[in-house]
Amino acid sequence: MKNLVGAAMFAQSGGPTSVINSSAAGVFIEALKQDKITAVYGAAHGIKGVLEENFYDISKEDMEELLLLKNTPSSALGSVRYKLKDAKKDDTDYKRIVEVFKKYNVRYFFYNGGNDSMDTCNKISKYIKKSGWDCNVIGVPKTIDNDLFGTDHCPGYASAAKYIATTIMEINLDAKVYDTPMVCVIEVMGRNAGWLTAAAALAGHKGLGADLIYLPEVAFDVNKFVSDVKAVCAKNNNKCIAVVSEGIHDKDGNLICEVAGAVARDSFGHAQLGGVGSTLANIIKQETGFKTRAIELSLMQRCGAHLASKVDVEEAFRAGREAVKAACRGTTDKMVVYKRDVDKNGNYKCKYSLVNLKLAANTEKTVPLEWIINDGTYISNEFVEYALPLIQGDSKAPLVDGLPRFAKLKKVLVEKK
Amino acid sequence: MKNLVGAAMFAQSGGPTSVINSSAAGVFIEALKQDKITAVYGAAHGIKGVLEENFYDISKEDMEELLLLKNTPSSALGSVRYKLKDAKKDDTDYKRIVEVFKKYNVRYFFYNGGNDSMDTCNKISKYIKKSGWDCNVIGVPKTIDNDLFGTDHCPGYASAAKYIATTIMEINLDAKVYDTPMVCVIEVMGRNAGWLTAAAALAGHKGLGADLIYLPEVAFDVNKFVSDVKAVCAKNNNKCIAVVSEGIHDKDGNLICEVAGAVARDSFGHAQLGGVGSTLANIIKQETGFKTRAIELSLMQRCGAHLASKVDVEEAFRAGREAVKAACRGTTDKMVVYKRDVDKNGNYKCKYSLVNLKLAANTEKTVPLEWIINDGTYISNEFVEYALPLIQGDSKAPLVDGLPRFAKLKKVLVEKK
Repeated sequence: MKNLVGAAMFAQSGGPTSVINSSAAGVFIEALKQDKITAVYGAAHGIKGVLEENFYDISKEDMEELLLLKNTPSSALGSVRYKLKDAKKDDTDYKRIVEVFKKYNVRYFFYNGGNDSMDTCNKISKYIKKSGWDCNVIGVPKTIDNDLFGTDHCPGYASAAKYIATTIMEINLDAKVYDTPMVCVIEVMGRNAGWLTAAAALAGHKGLGADLIYLPEVAFDVNKFVSDVKAVCAKNNNKCIAVVSEGIHDKDGNLICEVAGAVARDSFGHAQLGGVGSTLANIIKQETGFKTRAIELSLMQRCGAHLASKVDVEEAFRAGREAVKAACRGTTDKMVVYKRDVDKNGNYKCKYSLVNLKLAANTEKTVPLEWIINDGTYISNEFVEYALPLIQGDSKAPLVDGLPRFAKLKKVLVEKK
Repeated sequence: MKNLVGAAMFAQSGGPTSVINSSAAGVFIEALKQDKITAVYGAAHGIKGVLEENFYDISKEDMEELLLLKNTPSSALGSVRYKLKDAKKDDTDYKRIVEVFKKYNVRYFFYNGGNDSMDTCNKISKYIKKSGWDCNVIGVPKTIDNDLFGTDHCPGYASAAKYIATTIMEINLDAKVYDTPMVCVIEVMGRNAGWLTAAAALAGHKGLGADLIYLPEVAFDVNKFVSDVKAVCAKNNNKCIAVVSEGIHDKDGNLICEVAGAVARDSFGHAQLGGVGSTLANIIKQETGFKTRAIELSLMQRCGAHLASKVDVEEAFRAGREAVKAACRGTTDKMVVYKRDVDKNGNYKCKYSLVNLKLAANTEKTVPLEWIINDGTYISNEFVEYALPLIQGDSKAPLVDGLPRFAKLKKVLVEKK
């Protein structure tokens, strides 16, 4: 363990969340405090900013704006989807990263993102170690998908879940307002893991949820879906709210939005564009003649910071700080994780720990199959017990003129050497 | 002016809003206080509840729940879209209404809704007067569309506008996060009036708005739209956010979702289903090759009570109370309206007044054409000055377990006589 003194580089990568900037604030504020850290840089658009030597001098920012980051959605530094090649085949990018790190004496590197970003972070960590340049590398987790391995839950998930649950409660009241048939299909993000879709069960816990919930963890059958909806309608005054993951697929792994799109084309005589929600709503309309409505929660579920969970915002901030503290203690090649604990009163408490980057990078955590009940159409109370403590409390940007006041960073570029 | 003593009947009609229940709370709480009112009934599903003798005894509800109605979206009594026939041609429904009113001694009738509902209310008012049954009829306005005549603004509009503006600000941050081309088309409600779509200018006022805003008040040309978007992209790092009303139409009055749908079919070889947002996003994708995203604010914009404006919630509540007070003073055949005023400090203040139901029922208020600027692609600051005072303050349901606690009415049905 070496006593490294030098600059810290931070970057954000992958799809943003409502609280990824809270982790950025945590990293920045903690890094600015640490004596070992001589400069704090924020790379523009993830690893691309490092490769292109585009990074901002965070010491030039006002503390007030850095604190506003806690409640500002999206990635304030800009994000990127950039896949590093296998270093054994082409190490151009890696050499360049080490070159830049040496030039600016970067001794601490923090990468904030989800599965793919942790893969990037892991590859960089391994290459740097081999290169002989001393630099502590720590991953800061982030993903609304909640699918990172080794952590009880992921920063960003709870706020998205809270958005989804609250919105479903409101839609439930609205969609059932008329005394006429109505089938509503709500499409939620999450290609391979159903954590976000499962959040509909939180609304159900409050009596204003969905009648049917379909996760990508189990195979989806369109005919069964139609009969599920018909069964709900039969006992429920011809009303049904179904929530589906964008990633639902048939038993052969084909995405329903593609397979059922073809079904809809055969029946309607033309192709069905759009997401799985509108595809399924059209099929129900055709099968029942009922009024249907497809609702896609789209970007709003990951940027709806006005509905962020206070627990999530504060944990994400702390995750950023813990990353810096760990690196300054000499730790490298790890990702910060959350461990679920209870306080002396038996209430939920989060503890912070670390796992090997390699482990975080290559494993995906899905919803336990035993939590998926009612023949694949609902979520058990175990999920509610898991998720409820995470969505507690409000934390949002101050209102100015009735609208949120988000952080405005100066983004002073570091002069190229 | 007769001193009427008897029951009050209240009903909700048309598409719900975030604050229509606040008006209901205002009517109920004021009516329960009035000595002249001997019973307070809430009709299930609008006028249908009256026709079918399905109404609830509001005196059986807990005051706590009635107050929670202020922050509970959708129409708590259920809504309806039911068009009364011209009484001259078929007065069956009207006769039945008078019959029910006589049976239950209904001397006060309050109908809460938008244009169509005020038409219903106006027809009932005229028929009752002619029938000789003494009953004071007052309309309580409601519509997110903000298109009712004779009122400065409509209850429900400001909360929807606040939802739209806040959501666009968040989407703005999210959609621009990558350093790659991105065109985002956001579809907003409002078939004939662009008030809701104009709310995008509130987000723009905060520097996080849309680049282009298209209202249904002016003719829309798809080719011009494509060149507008290309022009924004050219000077804006290939990024553009456009907000369109669902009701935009070409110079001949054809809805763009239908006309351009056909265009998309010609080019792609298949039909374009879905709303105008996805239609336009597909056209842009085809024309530019850029990544595009269509976002429909769908039901959320009218039921997103968690983002309600405090000004709107309180005004809607007051509108309900004013309706009851006016009726008890002997007024009939009117609708409550808002008049914009200033207090002694020059700040926005709302005054309450009344207009003839007939006037409210048959006139539609659209956005002044002079507020639509930049060759039909943006909204002037006059709109911002108009709308900003209306979206001030937060007012939302208390959180229980991190989720809203909405009103749960007992809905005790009045025994049929």
